Amino acid sequence: MKISHQPPARLFTSDNAAGVHPDVMAAVVRANESHALAYGLDKYTMQAKDAFSKLFDADVRTEFVFGGTGANILALACVLKPAEAVVCTAWSHIAVDETGAPERILGAKLIDLPSLDGKLRPEDLHSVAHLRGHVHHAQPAVVSITQSTELGTVYSPDEVRAICETAHELEMLVHMDGARLSNAAAVYGATPEALRSFTIDAGVDILSFGGMKAGIMFGEAVVFLKPKLGDRAEYIRKQITQLNSKMRFVSAQYVELFRDGLFFQLGAQANAMALALYERTKHHKSLGLVAPPQVNSLYPTISQPARTALQDWSFFWDWDVAAQQVRWMTAWDTTLEDIEAFGLGVDEVLNSN
Amino acid sequence: MKISHQPPARLFTSDNAAGVHPDVMAAVVRANESHALAYGLDKYTMQAKDAFSKLFDADVRTEFVFGGTGANILALACVLKPAEAVVCTAWSHIAVDETGAPERILGAKLIDLPSLDGKLRPEDLHSVAHLRGHVHHAQPAVVSITQSTELGTVYSPDEVRAICETAHELEMLVHMDGARLSNAAAVYGATPEALRSFTIDAGVDILSFGGMKAGIMFGEAVVFLKPKLGDRAEYIRKQITQLNSKMRFVSAQYVELFRDGLFFQLGAQANAMALALYERTKHHKSLGLVAPPQVNSLYPTISQPARTALQDWSFFWDWDVAAQQVRWMTAWDTTLEDIEAFGLGVDEVLNSN
Amino acid sequence: MKISHQPPARLFTSDNAAGVHPDVMAAVVRANESHALAYGLDKYTMQAKDAFSKLFDADVRTEFVFGGTGANILALACVLKPAEAVVCTAWSHIAVDETGAPERILGAKLIDLPSLDGKLRPEDLHSVAHLRGHVHHAQPAVVSITQSTELGTVYSPDEVRAICETAHELEMLVHMDGARLSNAAAVYGATPEALRSFTIDAGVDILSFGGMKAGIMFGEAVVFLKPKLGDRAEYIRKQITQLNSKMRFVSAQYVELFRDGLFFQLGAQANAMALALYERTKHHKSLGLVAPPQVNSLYPTISQPARTALQDWSFFWDWDVAAQQVRWMTAWDTTLEDIEAFGLGVDEVLNSN
Amino acid sequence: MKISHQPPARLFTSDNAAGVHPDVMAAVVRANESHALAYGLDKYTMQAKDAFSKLFDADVRTEFVFGGTGANILALACVLKPAEAVVCTAWSHIAVDETGAPERILGAKLIDLPSLDGKLRPEDLHSVAHLRGHVHHAQPAVVSITQSTELGTVYSPDEVRAICETAHELEMLVHMDGARLSNAAAVYGATPEALRSFTIDAGVDILSFGGMKAGIMFGEAVVFLKPKLGDRAEYIRKQITQLNSKMRFVSAQYVELFRDGLFFQLGAQANAMALALYERTKHHKSLGLVAPPQVNSLYPTISQPARTALQDWSFFWDWDVAAQQVRWMTAWDTTLEDIEAFGLGVDEVLNSN
Repeated sequence: MKISHQPPARLFTSDNAAGVHPDVMAAVVRANESHALAYGLDKYTMQAKDAFSKLFDADVRTEFVFGGTGANILALACVLKPAEAVVCTAWSHIAVDETGAPERILGAKLIDLPSLDGKLRPEDLHSVAHLRGHVHHAQPAVVSITQSTELGTVYSPDEVRAICETAHELEMLVHMDGARLSNAAAVYGATPEALRSFTIDAGVDILSFGGMKAGIMFGEAVVFLKPKLGDRAEYIRKQITQLNSKMRFVSAQYVELFRDGLFFQLGAQANAMALALYERTKHHKSLGLVAPPQVNSLYPTISQPARTALQDWSFFWDWDVAAQQVRWMTAWDTTLEDIEAFGLGVDEVLNSN
Repeated sequence: MKISHQPPARLFTSDNAAGVHPDVMAAVVRANESHALAYGLDKYTMQAKDAFSKLFDADVRTEFVFGGTGANILALACVLKPAEAVVCTAWSHIAVDETGAPERILGAKLIDLPSLDGKLRPEDLHSVAHLRGHVHHAQPAVVSITQSTELGTVYSPDEVRAICETAHELEMLVHMDGARLSNAAAVYGATPEALRSFTIDAGVDILSFGGMKAGIMFGEAVVFLKPKLGDRAEYIRKQITQLNSKMRFVSAQYVELFRDGLFFQLGAQANAMALALYERTKHHKSLGLVAPPQVNSLYPTISQPARTALQDWSFFWDWDVAAQQVRWMTAWDTTLEDIEAFGLGVDEVLNSN
Repeated sequence: MKISHQPPARLFTSDNAAGVHPDVMAAVVRANESHALAYGLDKYTMQAKDAFSKLFDADVRTEFVFGGTGANILALACVLKPAEAVVCTAWSHIAVDETGAPERILGAKLIDLPSLDGKLRPEDLHSVAHLRGHVHHAQPAVVSITQSTELGTVYSPDEVRAICETAHELEMLVHMDGARLSNAAAVYGATPEALRSFTIDAGVDILSFGGMKAGIMFGEAVVFLKPKLGDRAEYIRKQITQLNSKMRFVSAQYVELFRDGLFFQLGAQANAMALALYERTKHHKSLGLVAPPQVNSLYPTISQPARTALQDWSFFWDWDVAAQQVRWMTAWDTTLEDIEAFGLGVDEVLNSN
Repeated sequence: MKISHQPPARLFTSDNAAGVHPDVMAAVVRANESHALAYGLDKYTMQAKDAFSKLFDADVRTEFVFGGTGANILALACVLKPAEAVVCTAWSHIAVDETGAPERILGAKLIDLPSLDGKLRPEDLHSVAHLRGHVHHAQPAVVSITQSTELGTVYSPDEVRAICETAHELEMLVHMDGARLSNAAAVYGATPEALRSFTIDAGVDILSFGGMKAGIMFGEAVVFLKPKLGDRAEYIRKQITQLNSKMRFVSAQYVELFRDGLFFQLGAQANAMALALYERTKHHKSLGLVAPPQVNSLYPTISQPARTALQDWSFFWDWDVAAQQVRWMTAWDTTLEDIEAFGLGVDEVLNSN
């Protein structure tokens, strides 16, 4: 089976496959002026930190790192004490997609709870509360939730608030892995207020803030919404290999990303394209696309040989091979032309079945 | 004391303060075309890996990381076994300038030996050989040397070969921290042959390869000169938080850096400028500049209030406060105009003393 | 509710509550003769190591440690490489009862799979095989099973062999946590042959060998059934804080424990007493004791206030508070008099309900 | 060369080679009565903890561990934060005789300073103060001193006080590795007051308390002289593999050791025997014994073949092979008969030279 149509110009493999937004790239080029003190003692980094405080309308503490795993490790390393554990879902990136970085670098246990939709709930926290106070058990101390989740679902502000309240009652802190925060913010209005509603306003303590899936080249941030928690962050960042000497080239990207709401627009664009892809393909009942995506990914089922034919034509990743399920993911730069081109290919392989 | 001259356009604080070479920046911009598979499955990364093999005229294994500490940790993590130790100098970056990253992430002891010039010698390895075979001592297993060293000195090819031979006789491996490899290569001719002479040809096993001080924006490389040593490098890179999702933006820089020998030219330029600064200022006997620099740094002594006056005018770092010693470091983009401008300021403060 | 009968002389809380068998204590006292070289260079340690090789009828490598968690950590530390993971059940001692020691000291992820009976099965190993070869996932490398299990069940020799075959096919090693090995051996005949049938003969690679629950004072052993796996064990033992300077006092206990099969008799005695307790109490239907115990523990359900009354009279631990389930555990020194005395108390509280 | 005299009944290899004091052994046997709750919930442990508080005349917090390395690791693990470092001498047990346990389990750097006599001084702490506040350096946070030192020297109470005052001024804590605390206490009077004078009264924060070299079988203690520092000690003890299930057998030994000052008498006896050995042998000028020992070890020089002849006859360890230096160490059970017997052998080999 070979598809006759032209494949789309962009891939549906991952939002990591997209490049850098042109405005952000221009900011990188502009930042390349002469010399600047290394390690964050430059004007761009000061501006970027201020931009984060404005974004959250609070005096937050922001530290930049190289990548997403580094952000999660830094955030957790700043708050975990020996013999403590992190509570998360069994789908969480920290539990399954970081090759054991938390265990190696934090030396901490992850208590990864089953979850059908990638979300934790207050009752999950209660379910591990019996471990507290017993010397034989690692002590649950931090809850880590992902927004939007690894399964393409989104916590509502109320859901996050409920988690935070329960966690705090149990004397636990809440970390949010926000690798796809812009997509989540887009669900609630694509504004700073939307972002705040499920982060700082909901009681989240520390945030891994993702820029790379929202159009920048490299560099994520850890935002200590309770700034005191980051008191030793700069030492720990260096210790975990995440201190960038030429930091201005990360900072300048964030300044640009936040200037006119680009961060929110790009998340909204990715989400809109996933919805468009859903609308364009849902008539193929075999795909099993029964509900519109919440953010920027679809998880259709495609049997063979259609699946391979489609992947050979425009690559995307398998999700659950046993279930014949794949993942289609849109990015900040996905266009309606891409959707239509991809839809034609889908039509072709599925109609020929 | 206030200096009347115009300060130089560029700083003498560190080669980290310099930005990105324009050709490299252009390569970054060019790489921003549409989509590319993430995590190194892109054409730029393939090209860059090939470029490294050409550079070393051997089928080496190269893996990219975000920064220099990450490079050192990855290199060492790939070869250390439990209860083993790394032998290095007490000046080494891994021992004093990485905030304990090796201890935390490798869980390994660094045996940091005193050295007057920042270099290790074969007798240093013999001096720790008695630790071997005793269960109470961490076992010396890897020698880590820095080229050029943290004190601005350079190992000759013969010196590196002697270290490697002794290390291998003692069943130890040799890691070279090459954060300033381009400066070292410039000393021996600024050619691939020069680079090979004190790395692969001398018997070095693993190399942290520095691009950032040689004009790129971000991203260092670990080069397994004995490729087998890197068999598990990709897993370990992810585990130590150094896997870059949009890797093409690092790889494209290295492709450009190696295209026409830019890597070597920029190291040579930095060294030449340090020499020019030496020649321009050595007549001030109080600076104690008794010998020309080997690479790109000078360590003059300046008493107060001249020191502060000069730093307020064009900042540079103290080196040894007790000894009134400072560090002047040139970069790939330092110009003769910068040297002259800086020299005028030095003249002004020292002559007024 | 207050029980009028005399409580039993011994507790049913845990086999850890029992003391030291008199013959073993006598051996400890005998070993206290004059001086002996420290750290295992003594004659008792040589004898004890030989005794282990005889027990397994093979040239195994045995190293003594202080306790059970130390044994598990040493065993795993000797074989795990960076970025690898251990596969175990969610009930396993290493996963829930060691306060995160594996994560902290090994820096490794535990992939803890659900299990109704505390056992792993070959299909569990197949269920994680898809993680292999993907750089984002910690790589399953060692299977750890517990014999007898944390739920009081026992693997048959065939079950262990099946796990080992599958593990080895998948290039994984098999570690057995044998904290209650004597109880398991008793199930299959209480002989060296029985012990071998589900360990060395079944293909197990490394064994945590428990003596403390079988009547000794302190000191467990790690038995490398494939001796090569223990090549660096002595260094690693010291590094993980488990090297005993006055080792003869552990070794002498094992020599005695193995002299006339005491190890097997004591396991058999504990099991027999659990069976006797079952027979003595099963007529109370509310206890839910529907099947005889396989080894030395029962998990009855007792509602309040009977439960507290019984615990106040002769303490034992809760097992699952929500389910009103408790654990009664016998030890090597439990007697029929203890069973009868305890049974009278149970009768009294349950009949009065 | 072969020695004709009868060798001494006891060795001069190490105080680890000695066994258990008979009174302590009797206490172990007595503690073996029926059942006791595991993990320290027994009456002996309560008594032993009380005995420690009486010893220090303060409400200290005491936790038992298996061995000396475990004690040091537990003490340090309770107080170190990420990116912090321990300051010690280059002779310290933690730096050279624990196979990298601190680096592996604590993930912390040891800053090991040169010292001619095994002691740290306030100026050593000042010498690392410049590291503070710089994100590239691990932050000195705990000073670890050894009393008596690895070189057989002893800190005076005033020396310890000076270290503690300087450390506290620099916001560092002081840990004392007291593996040979009884020998040190003997120097100042062999009383609780003597012990307190250079520990709690001098400002030490945490103490590794050694019982094994003072006549017990196994088990050391960590004494939190500032009890708050041990708030999480029980969790961390389990996490670092140092929780003893049958703890009563350690606790009972300490109760006995402290009952009538046995702890102090045994340290004094070891010291007295080292002095007697010094007096008995110092007339051999070639031994270089120019000053009496402070505690229980001598470091004579003996050239070949006398050295080997003596070691073959009554074994002791080399100390510095290049310098032909050996170590003779006395123990709590060394007698004057041992001294005389050993002296005869020394006479024989040295006079025949």
